Amino acid sequence: MAELLSDTIEMIRPLDREAMAEAGARQAQLTKPQGSLGRLEELCVQLAGIQGKPVPEIRHKAIVTMAGDHGVVAEGVSLWPQEVTAQMVYNFLGGGAAINVLARQVGARIIVVDMGVAADLAPDAKLLSRKVAHGTRNIAQGPAMTREQAKRAVGAGIEIVAAELARGLDIVGTGDMGIGNTTPSSAICAVMTGRPVAEVTGRGTGVSGQQLVHKREVVEKALAVNRPDPREPLDVLAKVGGFEIGGLVGVMLAAAAYRIPVVIDGFISGAAALIATALSPGLKDFLIAGHVSAEAGHRALLGHLGLKPLLDLEMRLGEGTGAALGIFLAEAAARVLGEMPTFAEAGVSEKSEAGN
Amino acid sequence: MAELLSDTIEMIRPLDREAMAEAGARQAQLTKPQGSLGRLEELCVQLAGIQGKPVPEIRHKAIVTMAGDHGVVAEGVSLWPQEVTAQMVYNFLGGGAAINVLARQVGARIIVVDMGVAADLAPDAKLLSRKVAHGTRNIAQGPAMTREQAKRAVGAGIEIVAAELARGLDIVGTGDMGIGNTTPSSAICAVMTGRPVAEVTGRGTGVSGQQLVHKREVVEKALAVNRPDPREPLDVLAKVGGFEIGGLVGVMLAAAAYRIPVVIDGFISGAAALIATALSPGLKDFLIAGHVSAEAGHRALLGHLGLKPLLDLEMRLGEGTGAALGIFLAEAAARVLGEMPTFAEAGVSEKSEAGN
Repeated sequence: MAELLSDTIEMIRPLDREAMAEAGARQAQLTKPQGSLGRLEELCVQLAGIQGKPVPEIRHKAIVTMAGDHGVVAEGVSLWPQEVTAQMVYNFLGGGAAINVLARQVGARIIVVDMGVAADLAPDAKLLSRKVAHGTRNIAQGPAMTREQAKRAVGAGIEIVAAELARGLDIVGTGDMGIGNTTPSSAICAVMTGRPVAEVTGRGTGVSGQQLVHKREVVEKALAVNRPDPREPLDVLAKVGGFEIGGLVGVMLAAAAYRIPVVIDGFISGAAALIATALSPGLKDFLIAGHVSAEAGHRALLGHLGLKPLLDLEMRLGEGTGAALGIFLAEAAARVLGEMPTFAEAGVSEKSEAGN
Repeated sequence: MAELLSDTIEMIRPLDREAMAEAGARQAQLTKPQGSLGRLEELCVQLAGIQGKPVPEIRHKAIVTMAGDHGVVAEGVSLWPQEVTAQMVYNFLGGGAAINVLARQVGARIIVVDMGVAADLAPDAKLLSRKVAHGTRNIAQGPAMTREQAKRAVGAGIEIVAAELARGLDIVGTGDMGIGNTTPSSAICAVMTGRPVAEVTGRGTGVSGQQLVHKREVVEKALAVNRPDPREPLDVLAKVGGFEIGGLVGVMLAAAAYRIPVVIDGFISGAAALIATALSPGLKDFLIAGHVSAEAGHRALLGHLGLKPLLDLEMRLGEGTGAALGIFLAEAAARVLGEMPTFAEAGVSEKSEAGN
């Protein structure tokens, strides 16, 4: 398993500068003022560099939604009962959750993974079971998981992406479900960015006032009890992380290794991205921030990663919903380059030499 | 024609508060934390109020892209030759422009209209010819058009929407093409918002430095020569507007009259919205700002209209490209409400009473 991780990290190479230059050159010849599609043009060039194709293609789209439970809910950090994690997994499998609706709209398949739900889920052909354990331990009292479990979680994410390649995979979105999982994500964010706990610990699904103060105390306690070392990303994951977060780390690493763009979702995916980019700094170039969520700390987290979100719609749902919308925009960026003619091809005059 | 305009304005009624209340109540019961889809939830409630349906539907989508030429190009306000307007119309009809690509992606049909291109366009089954004249006159020297022509332009937009109803129309996006048309749009924006010309006159398709200074002087001159009266929106349109701008005013008025949400595009559509909402203040509730463009003044324009853009991708292309992306988000908002089950339907537990 240790080899799978190091081999995957070893496979991550820089973006293809030649493909990017070719994409940029063609972009400048399309029948529109240069740069007039703004960030869609930059995005298209990034996609070219990731895929290593002068005209990137986004046809096969997938969202990996990973579920896990968190022992820290015993501290009262969430308003929702833990059984909702399992219930929402069934909702995903039934096609009724927000992520199902948005994935259908953008034409992405959903890969639902049980990374560590605290219940025995009924077998389902649509559910991937990679359960590391029945929920993490309470991080306010000790480590969330063993170092071995952390590696297993990351390895599962890597293997899932590798297995999906055969079905076609031009872009992958990340999503999460786990009652209480903004708490470990805040702990990871505080450790990895060095920001104060109060700044990166937010309302989650809706705590406020005294409950929010308490949640911040729990995060502080988790850090004090576990003393995670930011120079050791797997140590951070094991001590204050979660199984679905570890799985998403693996998804990101494998996607970059296989040159597949990754659209990250909100705060939980962002926490995974902090771990993944610490394991492999070059991974950052393969990431696209679908949106900035309403969760406190997400903007700072993205700033730390050097990512500029595509959307700011005050969403805070997770599941991969922001990633789904980002996949739509990435596809738009790729389609423009792939489907538009150049000025010469379309017989349209260009602007005068006097121009910039 | 005068009656068509006043009859249409007369038809515009307030949003359906009952449908909005029902939509909001169902939204709160869906299997996700309340409010967690942020602006998509507000958008869905707005759509319900416009369509008068507790569960709004976005299936039949259309983008109306109107083209017109501008005599003011004689002043050297654009880097592009005037013939590009006609060439881009042919590009739209051939399916190769950016708007074609994005409209295909979101499943919207495009209605291409010649409102006043300065060339005789070859007949084409896909082209609606509503040519008011071969381009406007030079607004730096006198009025763009007669008052009668302004009414004809608006009337054409109204009739086009009315004719499209039979094909099904759940949402309409606005788009424009017209070399030089940021100049009249800046003039309209300055008059209607009271903002300084320098603030609302931007680079358009790419002028800069001394050219931008000159463009601002041309806008100042157009206002000084014509003295448009902001209390008389049709006067403003006739004196410093454009045929495609007038057509879009009609599209917006008719859409509101027939209770169809309108996703406005960038700066030119925004100028049309300033005229349209001055003719009918209640129209504002039917508008959705697809994006804020990179054009100077667009943000101020949207602020004046009281609209918050859905996207900020530094785009500045027009054609309806920002509207196409906005239509995607509106459809997402409607689909979530239409396709998601409630907690009770899905058998998912709700959060504890202690919650907010």
